[in-house]
Amino acid sequence: MSSNDSLARLAAVIESRKAVNGGDPDRSYVARLLHKGPDAFLKKIGEEATEVVMAAKDADHGGDPARITGEVADLWFHCMVALAHYGLTPADVVAELERREGTSGIEEKALRKAIHREGQP
Amino acid sequence: MSSNDSLARLAAVIESRKAVNGGDPDRSYVARLLHKGPDAFLKKIGEEATEVVMAAKDADHGGDPARITGEVADLWFHCMVALAHYGLTPADVVAELERREGTSGIEEKALRKAIHREGQP
Amino acid sequence: MSSNDSLARLAAVIESRKAVNGGDPDRSYVARLLHKGPDAFLKKIGEEATEVVMAAKDADHGGDPARITGEVADLWFHCMVALAHYGLTPADVVAELERREGTSGIEEKALRKAIHREGQP
Amino acid sequence: MSSNDSLARLAAVIESRKAVNGGDPDRSYVARLLHKGPDAFLKKIGEEATEVVMAAKDADHGGDPARITGEVADLWFHCMVALAHYGLTPADVVAELERREGTSGIEEKALRKAIHREGQP
Repeated sequence: MSSNDSLARLAAVIESRKAVNGGDPDRSYVARLLHKGPDAFLKKIGEEATEVVMAAKDADHGGDPARITGEVADLWFHCMVALAHYGLTPADVVAELERREGTSGIEEKALRKAIHREGQP
Repeated sequence: MSSNDSLARLAAVIESRKAVNGGDPDRSYVARLLHKGPDAFLKKIGEEATEVVMAAKDADHGGDPARITGEVADLWFHCMVALAHYGLTPADVVAELERREGTSGIEEKALRKAIHREGQP
Repeated sequence: MSSNDSLARLAAVIESRKAVNGGDPDRSYVARLLHKGPDAFLKKIGEEATEVVMAAKDADHGGDPARITGEVADLWFHCMVALAHYGLTPADVVAELERREGTSGIEEKALRKAIHREGQP
Repeated sequence: MSSNDSLARLAAVIESRKAVNGGDPDRSYVARLLHKGPDAFLKKIGEEATEVVMAAKDADHGGDPARITGEVADLWFHCMVALAHYGLTPADVVAELERREGTSGIEEKALRKAIHREGQP
C-alpha cells in the first residue's frame, strides 16, 4: 500500500471503526452504520446514487458541476463502508478496474453488447 | 502504484474516448456512452447501485462477497464516465474525501445528525 | 373518478396538502415534502426503490414477503407525491398502463427488444 | 372503472405469464422476466426509479412533465412483476396505503420523525 494512497488510508479509518477494533457507535458515524448492519449502509448507496443523478441533471441545466463531486464522494464513501463490512477494500475495486482495462478487447466486448442491445450499428 | 494513480490512468483512458479527442462511438463503449449523453450513463449509475445492493444482500445470505467487488467496480466506472463528461476527475472525488477526513469533527457532525435522525442517543 | 378508487382518494389527500390548498409543513409530512421541493421527494423515490429491492432479496432467502408490500407502498406513495407536484395523478399512470396493455403487440415489441438485448433467442 | 380494477386486470395478465400458467419466455416479455428470476426485474426497479428522477429533474428545468407519467408507469409495472413473483398483488399495496391513510395520526408520526430528522421545527 502506497503511503500516498488516499483511498487505502480512508479504508483504514473505516476499518478502525468496526466494533472488533473498538469503534463506538455513540462516537463515530461509520461505527454507527456498521453497528446497524447492511441495510443501513446499502440504503445509503441507493440514496446517494440518486443524489449523484440529481446533481448531474442540475448541472445539465446550468447548475454547478462541482456539486457532483460531493455527491460522488458520498456515494463512494458509503460503498467503502459496505466493502469494509464484507471484508473487501477499495484496492480490490481498483484492481478489478485495472484488470478490465488491461484485458485487451474488454471495451470492444462491452461495445458489441451495447450495439446489439440498441439493435443498430 | 497507488489507487490514485490507477484511477487517474483510467480517467485518462475515458478522457481519450471523448469525441473531441477522437473517441469513436462505433469502436468504444465509453465513446458510445458519452456520445449518447448524460441520461445514458446516469441511468447506468442507478442500475449499477442496485446491482451492488443485490450482490451485498446475496453475500448476507451466504453468497460470494467477491461479486460485490465487480459490482462496485461497475458503479465507480460509470461514475467516472459521468465525472469526465462534467469536466471532473476521480482525483477531485478523492480530494473531497480527504478534505472531509482531514476536517476534524466531520464524522462527529455526521454522527450528531444520525443520532438526531434516529431520535435516540 | 369512482368513489371506490383508493388511489384517487389518496391523491386527493396529497393534493390538499399543497401550500395553495392550505397544507401546513409544520402539521403534515406530505406538506413538508412538497414545501421542501422536488429533491426531497425524488431522493425518497431512489431510497424506497432500494428498500423494495432489499426486502425482495430477503424474501428470496427466506424472509417474509409481506415486507415487500410495505416497501412498494412507500415507493408508490412517494411517486404520488411527485406526481402531485408535477400536476399529474395516479389515474394518468394507470391510464398509461392500460393504454400499453390495450395496444396489441406492445408486449411482443418489448420482448423482441429484450431478446435482441440478450443476443439470443 | 376504478384504478383498482385496472391494476387488478393488469396483475391478472402478469399472473398468466408465469410458467405454471403457461407463460412462454419466447413469446412474452413478462414471462421472460419471471423466467430469468428476481435479479432481472429487481434491477429494472432500480433503473426505472432513476428514470423517474431524471424525467422529473428535466420537468423542473422546463421539460414535459408528461414524460414522468410514462416513467412512473414503467416503475409500477416492474413492481407489479415483482409482486406477482412473491405471491403479492397491487391490491395488497393499495390496502396498505389505505390502512395508513385510515390510521389517524400516521401522517403526524411521519411528520414528527421528519422534523426530528431535520433538527428544527
